This record gives sequence, C-alpha cells and structure tokens, in this order.
Amino acid sequence: MRGQDLLSVTDLDARQLELIIETAIAMKRDGSPALLTGKTVAFLFEKPSLRTRVSFEVGISQLGGRSIYLSPSEIGLGVREPIKDVARVLSGYVDCLIVRTGSQGVLTELADWASVPVVNALSDDEHPCQALADMLTIFEVKGGIRGIKVAYVGDGNNVARSLALACGLAGASITLASPDGYELPATDLEKARRLAGEGGVIEAVDDPRAAVNRADVVYTDVWTSMGQETEAAKRRDAFAGYQVDKSLIALARPDAVVMHDLPAHRGEEISDDVIESSQSVVFLQAENRLHAQKAALALILGDNERQEV
Amino acid sequence: MRGQDLLSVTDLDARQLELIIETAIAMKRDGSPALLTGKTVAFLFEKPSLRTRVSFEVGISQLGGRSIYLSPSEIGLGVREPIKDVARVLSGYVDCLIVRTGSQGVLTELADWASVPVVNALSDDEHPCQALADMLTIFEVKGGIRGIKVAYVGDGNNVARSLALACGLAGASITLASPDGYELPATDLEKARRLAGEGGVIEAVDDPRAAVNRADVVYTDVWTSMGQETEAAKRRDAFAGYQVDKSLIALARPDAVVMHDLPAHRGEEISDDVIESSQSVVFLQAENRLHAQKAALALILGDNERQEV
Amino acid sequence: MRGQDLLSVTDLDARQLELIIETAIAMKRDGSPALLTGKTVAFLFEKPSLRTRVSFEVGISQLGGRSIYLSPSEIGLGVREPIKDVARVLSGYVDCLIVRTGSQGVLTELADWASVPVVNALSDDEHPCQALADMLTIFEVKGGIRGIKVAYVGDGNNVARSLALACGLAGASITLASPDGYELPATDLEKARRLAGEGGVIEAVDDPRAAVNRADVVYTDVWTSMGQETEAAKRRDAFAGYQVDKSLIALARPDAVVMHDLPAHRGEEISDDVIESSQSVVFLQAENRLHAQKAALALILGDNERQEV
Repeated sequence: MRGQDLLSVTDLDARQLELIIETAIAMKRDGSPALLTGKTVAFLFEKPSLRTRVSFEVGISQLGGRSIYLSPSEIGLGVREPIKDVARVLSGYVDCLIVRTGSQGVLTELADWASVPVVNALSDDEHPCQALADMLTIFEVKGGIRGIKVAYVGDGNNVARSLALACGLAGASITLASPDGYELPATDLEKARRLAGEGGVIEAVDDPRAAVNRADVVYTDVWTSMGQETEAAKRRDAFAGYQVDKSLIALARPDAVVMHDLPAHRGEEISDDVIESSQSVVFLQAENRLHAQKAALALILGDNERQEV
Repeated sequence: MRGQDLLSVTDLDARQLELIIETAIAMKRDGSPALLTGKTVAFLFEKPSLRTRVSFEVGISQLGGRSIYLSPSEIGLGVREPIKDVARVLSGYVDCLIVRTGSQGVLTELADWASVPVVNALSDDEHPCQALADMLTIFEVKGGIRGIKVAYVGDGNNVARSLALACGLAGASITLASPDGYELPATDLEKARRLAGEGGVIEAVDDPRAAVNRADVVYTDVWTSMGQETEAAKRRDAFAGYQVDKSLIALARPDAVVMHDLPAHRGEEISDDVIESSQSVVFLQAENRLHAQKAALALILGDNERQEV
Repeated sequence: MRGQDLLSVTDLDARQLELIIETAIAMKRDGSPALLTGKTVAFLFEKPSLRTRVSFEVGISQLGGRSIYLSPSEIGLGVREPIKDVARVLSGYVDCLIVRTGSQGVLTELADWASVPVVNALSDDEHPCQALADMLTIFEVKGGIRGIKVAYVGDGNNVARSLALACGLAGASITLASPDGYELPATDLEKARRLAGEGGVIEAVDDPRAAVNRADVVYTDVWTSMGQETEAAKRRDAFAGYQVDKSLIALARPDAVVMHDLPAHRGEEISDDVIESSQSVVFLQAENRLHAQKAALALILGDNERQEV
C-alpha cells in the first residue's frame, strides 16, 4: 500500500488491515525501526485534537520521522488559498499530509492534487485511524477478530461508520443500535456487508438490549460530537435509554469488553462505573492509536513494500 | 529521583537540589549526554509562555528527546475531557508531562492519575523550575549558596514561595519585604524554615530597606502577575516604595547581584538603570532555566539513577 | 556570511547571492549535509504562514537542526515584554531567530540586541527569502540570471522591493508596472540600480504591456496583502488592467515563464488559465523556498565559512 491515501476504511483490503495489525503488534513487542528517517509529515488540523495529534506525533518520532503541526489559522484551507494550491505547495515540502477536517470533500480534493499520501485523521464521514486502533485492541484482548460479535450502541456517526466497515473487512459481526433518526445510513451497512462477504453479520436494531445480547465487545461514543453542541439537549432526549451502564453490560458475555474512542461524557453515553470497570479497555484502546497509526504509516511511507513481522 | 514528580520545591530534598546544580554545571561545561533518546515530553500549557516553553524544548532536544506542545484549545483540561482521562491517555503516549496551569489542584490530579512524571512549569502556587535556575545562578555568581543572604522585594507570589523554599533547602538566608496584604503566608515561611533546619534564616519584614541591607542578592518580580491585570492600578499603589532602584541597591553589599525572573516591568518593580546595570544577572538567570531544567529532567527521566558529575 | 543577519536583500553582496544559489542547487542534487546538528532555530511569527513556516521547518530538519515555532500569543513582542529583552533571553537558548513581523523596525531592534543571527521571514518592507527562491528558480529555468529580463506587474510591495533588489544584485533587468499610487518608491529603484552597477537595467513604467514586452519572466503578486483587507475594493479598481492573463503573456517571449509567490487570487492579479498553464513555474518556485532557505541557513549557521559546491 506504499504511496496510497488512507481516507476511508474502504481504501484498505482485508490483507492490508491484517498486515497493519500484525505490524502494530510486532512494533509493540520489538520496538520501532527507523522507517521514516529523513521524512516529514504535515498535520492540517481544522479542529482541536489531543489523542490524534499526540499519538501521531509520537509515533512518527518513534519511526525516526518529523512532523509539523499546522493549525486552522495557518492553513486557511480554501479560504486563504485554494485547496488544490495548498496540496501542490505542501507536496513540494513534506512526505505525507495528515488531515483533520469536517468535510470528506476537502480530503478528497487534497488527495486528488497532492503528490504525497493523504491520511484522514477524522472527518465528518469517517475515522479510519480509530477503526485500526479498535481492530488492534479487539485482536489483543480477544486473541483474534474473525467471528467476534461487536455491539455498537449510540450515534450512527463517523466512528460508527468506520467501525462497521472495519468489522466487515476483518470478519467480525457488528450490531448497531441507534435511536430513530440517528442510525447509520443503509448505504453504509450495505458497504460493510459487501466488505464482509461470507464473513461477519452486519445489522442494525432499535433496542440496545438486542444489540448487546451475548456480545464480545460493547462500543459506544458521545451522543453529541464536536460541532453539534447546539443539538446537545435534543440529542440527550433522543438517546435516553441508550446509555451503556451496568444493567446493559450484564446482557453481554461475561468476558465482554467495553470500548469508547474518548473523550467520554460520563452519565450520558456511558456510566462512570462501566468506564472505570475492569471490563473497560478504553485506555488500552487509546494507546493503540499510537501503535496502529505507526503500522499504517510504516506501510504507507516506509521504504519497504512490506514489513517483516 | 527517577520517576518522581516535580510539583513543588518541597518534592526535592537538599541532596537532590545539590545534584541538580552539579549536573547543570557539568552540562554547561561539558555538553549534554543523549539521556532522553527515544523519549517524548508533552507540554500542557494553559497560559502563554516564552522562556518556559523555549528553554524546556531546547533542553529536551539537546538531551536527545522530543517534545510536543499542546495549547489550551487542544487540551480542554477538565472541560473537553476529565483530567484523570487526559492523564491516563497521555501516559500511554509520552514519558513526561510538563504542565503550566493556574491551579495546583489540576497539577496534583494529573500527577495522581498519570503513570509518568509530572513537572510544574508554573502554577499559581509555585514555580519550582525558576527556583532551580535561581539557585544555579546564585551558585555560579557567588561560588556557593550556603550562607548567602537573599533579599526578595515585592509580591509574595508563586516565584517568591518557590524561592523561599529553595533558599531553605540550599542553606541560604532570605528576607522577604512585601506590602501589607501581599506577604507570603506565614505557613510558607514555616515550611521554608523546616527545610532550612539549622541552615539559613527565613524571615519577613515590612521595609524593603531592612531586607536589602547588606544582602548578597536582591530579587524582585512583577507586582501584577498574569491573570491579575484588573488589580494593576490598586497593586501599583500598594507597592509604591518597593521598587528596586539605585538607592535601594546602594544598601546591599557592593558586590550584590540583582535578579528577576522576567518579564520585567521597568519603572514598576525595577528601574531601567538597575536591570541594565552591571550588577544585574537577569539574562544569565534566564539562560540558566535551560541548564537547570535539563539537569532536573536528566534526573527525573534519564536512564541512570544518578548522573556522574 | 556566517553569523550575519538577513533582514534585507541588501545584507547580501553579489558573491553571497551566487553562493546561496550554488549551494541550493548542490543540495537539491546531492542531499543535505547535517550542518545544523545540535542547533535550534526559533520562529517568531506575528502573522500566520504556510509556505514560510513549513519550508523553513522542513529545511532546518533536513539540515539536522531543530525549530521551535512561537505564535503571537506566546511572544507578545513589545507588549508582554520589551523587544530587547526577548532578543537577549532567546539568544541564551537558540542559535537563530526567524521572524515574521509587520515592522522592519522590530526586526532591526531584535537584530541589534540578539547575539544570534536574525532572518527576515517577511516584513512590510521586504521578503528576502522569497527573493532568494525567485533567483534560484530563474537560474534553474533560464540557465542563468545575468541578462534575464524580468517584468513585475502589480503592487509595489515588499515582494516587489526584494525582487528588484535581488535582480539588481544578480545582474538581471527588471521593469515594474504598477498603477498610479502603488509604485515602488523611487528610492528603492535607486537602491536596486546601485546594486546593479553596470549590470541589469532597473526601471518603472505605467503600462503592463510595456513591461511584459519580450520579457523572459513575468512576475505578479496579490493586489491586497495581509492587513490591507479593508482596501480590497479600492485596490481592485486601481489595479484593473494589471491582470496577468493570456493576452498580456502573449507579449512576452514565447519561452517566458510566469512567477507568483502565492497565495494567488485567481481572477484578480492572475487568470486561472495562466497560473495553471505550462508556462507557470509557481509550484517549482514555492518548492524552491525550501532549497534557497536551506542554503542561506547553511551559510549563516553552518560550521564552515563556505560550503563546497
């Protein structure tokens, strides 16, 4: 996948996803080769970020590369300067663009004009790097992904979309439970099913209890994402009954783990006792952003087509 | 002290302070070993900074490490995300947190939840890294610290508190002169006296002239710190007569030096002719932030329990 | 030129400009020696920047050095702290200051007080690093600079001033066409002529067609620079007829190239078809910021008086 963009989980095939997980595990165990020596990555971030920025910067540094963080005021994507010009100018300086933007269209336009790979570090549509960390976490705590039953309870947002696609690609089953009007669109479920093929089952239900029933993994995310703050009250009403709490978790398998991509709003989508419980793997999952992204960058930017693992 | 937090001067004992000064002097003379290779430090800064940020970043780089600067908008400490979650997430990515925050409580909570060392880079209560640089400067210009007589003239603020504690720890005497209502609390003087033991004398007076009389070091700081801007006029009135000017300095020993942690407000707490005089060591003192902090980080993060000096 | 400031093109002599171009070409061809190992450069930027910041940071990194970007809120040049204090404090930490500020006076004051070199990364008066990249680009696409005929069409601004001075220094001829009231002052033309000596012809005209006639290079820049936004409508009127479009370019030599320092405002100073045409070298020119600045920094900061090329 050298030189390839990573705008969506669908930019990967099943073998590439497997390779990223294998590479991440090898790097966690054996340390990181200096695959990015002499390489520079630019961050174009239109929204603030903690996990995403730090995990990428640390990972790039551990691989021997260098990163430059550009904040909204410096970029003015499409405002100070046309996107196509920003893409061509930066391609003359750096080896990769890691982009956090609302619009998937901005990402696509950057990728069309840049001569270097573009990585989606969170858009309104997808969060593929989170999905890679999620798959790595499931692999580590469950010993594999194929056949695992994931329940996603909450908003049918970018995180849910990338998670469903990654489950499809990796052979896990996923059941999504969202309130009326907040479901992942049917076209996304279809896309995930196509990726799944004869593998896992991809389905949507209304009732969180039905989704969580005998699940191996229970996953949730905030009800109100950045930029939706004005809808917060309305959303809290709509999502009543969708909190991942002790009574809901009791329906999952006894060894089920709880996942959340953070930041979490305790008392909304998740109860404090659940996120702080021994079933919660949210901080391992957060740490795995580092390892999964390093593996992805190694494959996209490293000098070898394939890392030996 | 490997792995230890540095939230207050009281986190150090006398031997550790001595070791930091010895290590700093050795590094100034011989250059820096690459003790932080492969290590990353995150800066969580809730207030703007020049000296603190640049001296830490350069120092970490000279020690072979890497730093990531996070501004308030990226962190949202306790706003976007609970402090305990930020601490645990970042502990999965980086090797140390250097924090500039108003509240000592935020620092303590970060340190409680982080699995990596936390360093106070200025809080409302203390400025321990400045105090380390101050002790290094006194050591260099006076050939030692024990028995030195320091006069602090001005606001009983965070800088004054850390200075008094460090003087106690290092065996210097300190006399603080502050206007009514702006003194360092008696409990802090008590704490410094306990650290001093049989060493230096720690005392507070009203009259700046009494404090400066035959002092080896005359130290002052701004009357109005960041965040107190609305009190500026009231403070200027209260501090009238506390300016460190030529007539005040004339009371100190002829070889006395003038210190200030900068930025300085000429014409308020210090006169232009004094800060620009040959007795002023304020720029050496500023440079020593670099060396003192490198020594502290080497001891906190370096691979060896103790640096040979 | 080791240790020298670069505040204006006039800080260089003809031999130094030639040396920077030779060094840049050698580095493009052969890669970069690690001339800045162990060195740190601080960026003091009072205005946002994309090209300037990224090209400098990448270049410094490729030369083995490290950079620290300080934004306006952190510096407070002359507000939080007097310029002379900022200059002296930073000189204790870093090896070079790269400054983007409105005022040439701020630059000069920084350079007067800093004990390390100061580089102008764009001021209201000059943009010398852009001019270095411009000369490198002309050298590459035309095989030399001496005797080349440059036409500058548009605002007599900082970019125009540095370009005219660099043309004078390098032996190119330049004809500037600006609307009434927006010309480069006569004193600047005089300065460029003094640098040119017996070399190129430096002249100003009213009519863009006269300037472009049989030119080898047609250069333009935005009509409204950062900070002049309130004048935008008035300026659009004044500059009507000064757009670099197909009909204007048709008057230049058939092998003429089009240059622009970007960002460009298509439909104002340049038409979309011209900037996207095969005659446009604007993205090569942007990339050359990287190489020209690396060469300049190597000469200012490198350990050798002169790089072998």
